[in-house]
Amino acid sequence: MREKLFCILENDNDSLLSRCYNLIMLFAIVVSFIPLMSKHTNSFHLLVDYISTAIFCLDYLFRILTADFKLQKGKLSFLFYPFSLLAIVDLLSILPTFLYFNNSLRLLKIVRMGRVLRVFKVIRYSKNIQILTNVLQNQKESLLLVASLAVGYIFFTALLIFSVEPDTFETFFDAIYWATISLTTVGYGDIFATTMLGKIITMLSSIIGIAIVALPAGIITAGYMNEITKKG
Amino acid sequence: MREKLFCILENDNDSLLSRCYNLIMLFAIVVSFIPLMSKHTNSFHLLVDYISTAIFCLDYLFRILTADFKLQKGKLSFLFYPFSLLAIVDLLSILPTFLYFNNSLRLLKIVRMGRVLRVFKVIRYSKNIQILTNVLQNQKESLLLVASLAVGYIFFTALLIFSVEPDTFETFFDAIYWATISLTTVGYGDIFATTMLGKIITMLSSIIGIAIVALPAGIITAGYMNEITKKG
Amino acid sequence: MREKLFCILENDNDSLLSRCYNLIMLFAIVVSFIPLMSKHTNSFHLLVDYISTAIFCLDYLFRILTADFKLQKGKLSFLFYPFSLLAIVDLLSILPTFLYFNNSLRLLKIVRMGRVLRVFKVIRYSKNIQILTNVLQNQKESLLLVASLAVGYIFFTALLIFSVEPDTFETFFDAIYWATISLTTVGYGDIFATTMLGKIITMLSSIIGIAIVALPAGIITAGYMNEITKKG
Amino acid sequence: MREKLFCILENDNDSLLSRCYNLIMLFAIVVSFIPLMSKHTNSFHLLVDYISTAIFCLDYLFRILTADFKLQKGKLSFLFYPFSLLAIVDLLSILPTFLYFNNSLRLLKIVRMGRVLRVFKVIRYSKNIQILTNVLQNQKESLLLVASLAVGYIFFTALLIFSVEPDTFETFFDAIYWATISLTTVGYGDIFATTMLGKIITMLSSIIGIAIVALPAGIITAGYMNEITKKG
Repeated sequence: MREKLFCILENDNDSLLSRCYNLIMLFAIVVSFIPLMSKHTNSFHLLVDYISTAIFCLDYLFRILTADFKLQKGKLSFLFYPFSLLAIVDLLSILPTFLYFNNSLRLLKIVRMGRVLRVFKVIRYSKNIQILTNVLQNQKESLLLVASLAVGYIFFTALLIFSVEPDTFETFFDAIYWATISLTTVGYGDIFATTMLGKIITMLSSIIGIAIVALPAGIITAGYMNEITKKG
Repeated sequence: MREKLFCILENDNDSLLSRCYNLIMLFAIVVSFIPLMSKHTNSFHLLVDYISTAIFCLDYLFRILTADFKLQKGKLSFLFYPFSLLAIVDLLSILPTFLYFNNSLRLLKIVRMGRVLRVFKVIRYSKNIQILTNVLQNQKESLLLVASLAVGYIFFTALLIFSVEPDTFETFFDAIYWATISLTTVGYGDIFATTMLGKIITMLSSIIGIAIVALPAGIITAGYMNEITKKG
Repeated sequence: MREKLFCILENDNDSLLSRCYNLIMLFAIVVSFIPLMSKHTNSFHLLVDYISTAIFCLDYLFRILTADFKLQKGKLSFLFYPFSLLAIVDLLSILPTFLYFNNSLRLLKIVRMGRVLRVFKVIRYSKNIQILTNVLQNQKESLLLVASLAVGYIFFTALLIFSVEPDTFETFFDAIYWATISLTTVGYGDIFATTMLGKIITMLSSIIGIAIVALPAGIITAGYMNEITKKG
Repeated sequence: MREKLFCILENDNDSLLSRCYNLIMLFAIVVSFIPLMSKHTNSFHLLVDYISTAIFCLDYLFRILTADFKLQKGKLSFLFYPFSLLAIVDLLSILPTFLYFNNSLRLLKIVRMGRVLRVFKVIRYSKNIQILTNVLQNQKESLLLVASLAVGYIFFTALLIFSVEPDTFETFFDAIYWATISLTTVGYGDIFATTMLGKIITMLSSIIGIAIVALPAGIITAGYMNEITKKG
């Protein structure tokens, strides 16, 4: 009985029942975001919240009950499972409904987004998702390197502009924010350099920024081509 | 007689007459947009509208008359043809002129843009259009995957910012709009996060956004290179 | 004598004298832009303008005198040469100084930028310029196709937004401007959609815009790789 | 004794002591930026500044003492070393603390960022950094060419807009700033063309700008792929 439940949860034999279960979960997750899309909570929102939380609770219960099949550690599995990452995500996405006294807990509900990943994991991957995941997996180190390069560059530019234009940037955080928005070429225009020296730094940053933006594009393209020729 | 007309419409034997017919259609489509480029309708605009609609009506009539050559289903073709996608586009691009009582129907006229595609389809493809179409065709699934990834990411960021900064974003739609404008690095600056937490979310979104923008570039590049080496 | 002059002008035997001549021309071009960088014309600017124009006049004279070596058409060369593209550029870059009665002619002086290209053409190409030129040359058709696709898309979006938000966009030109600034992700924020429907169009445009931006990147990358592997 | 010190400084035999030394230096550099992140200097900032400068002084002393092992020129090394680039960077990053009379010297402290590079140089490279460095090294000329193309294009657009819209752009520097912000698609919106001609120039610039942005992406991608296939 418990083994059957586990098969449904994990989609081990790709059964129709399992696909249905996961689709219902996906639907429950999507629906549970409806109350978050509104500022005011009405009775419909509360109803949706209660029902989706009830479904999540059942799912959490099912998973705890079948923890020994998952972790393969006998009785100890029931002790270890609640501390695994996915179990904590599950718990965090249930809790806010029970502890609904202030709005700051709304944020915790977004943790449910993590559940979406699990559903995708279970419903059999398409070939394309696999290729994309492989590319990101293989180029992980290079992408991390480029990301840390970008962060270092943002920090450097922020230091520079903060020293040059203390009047425009009230705190160092503002300078970091400005540097990020400029490097990524978003450029809202809510904060920008006004002195000549500041504008020169802005120009240099933007141009170097293009090169830094080109790096991940190059890495991903190269990785993607490698993956395609490997498969072909 | 009808077969000859069909050949002209579909450019089956690449005749001069057919090319002329399609160029006239293209010209009629382009000219028919002139009234849409102005807010006020003067007599010249009405004239242009009537003439172009008349041409479109003739074209629609010709195509219905030759439907049996197109669909190859005998008499039934005349029944089925008006419900094919292109026939509906044709009808929609004629109707607004007959039902010209309010301005909201102006939008329907833009459907005529769809006719441009047909003209391009008929005038023999250049090699480059074929390569480009092949690339987009072959990578369709990957591009759709990346697009849905981007949409999911936009939804996630919108949920996050809407919970964190309810004062800046009046409706959830505003949050979605902000997330899209930020991810695509357009950044008009008409709406942006003002709290520290909101700015941190903005920064993370922009940086991850670059990676998401790099994905389609990589996919298209890889597909384009494959296509070129295949031909070569 | 004239043949020698022609060799110097065209750098046929890569002589020191020829390199010097072209460097002096390059210097004269750069210096001649100084008066354009200021709103007000002082005596120094006039002096610079007169000297640089004198140098350009001499260069124009030299080139007319050696036109028969250039065009290889005997006496007729002297008649045809002044109507070649480069000769017209040369003439246009001299004229404004002689006809200096209003400021609108300042624009004509920027034509001198065309002269820079000639200098680059003459001073022996580096390998990299050659590769880059080859890439752009080979992919010219594809790039033109993508450019016309982008222009068509801008026109389509402009028509759409102009019908949906006639209050925001006073003229159709404004709509075209908005569409271009949005598609290229510049997003100054001087003009943007304010209605819900307009914002939805904005979002769709931005996302499709990324794909359109990715196309030239893909084409150039593929062309560049082809060029490198060919050479290697 | 001095040889041992040199080994630690340069991480010649990848010893634990050397790694520790370099990590301490990295930590000192990072910590020394804390006072720069604030506008006002309190006693904690002064303390951090004194301690980090003391560490930098010691490091500078160590490096001068072992200069003969570094430069391999005998006694002359001690004379030459202080004028090497890295030694000047080191000196510049110490000086401001001793000469702390005005805020403009804050900028000099950012020179310390250069020290970070040295630390990275010493702690053994990961494979990915090596690949990235190779790509940038091999494509240096192409990237410089593209960069100078971009600078030329910025200059050209700035000249154009400055002649067309003298009312919007007070100085030529403003025009250069606007051209850079537009080409890189940052588009803060603090300065933009307002006349019709100016907007047409803006649109052309943005579209050509995309191609110029696509060039470095293509170059880096091609270089990266070459590097990967070489290693594989």
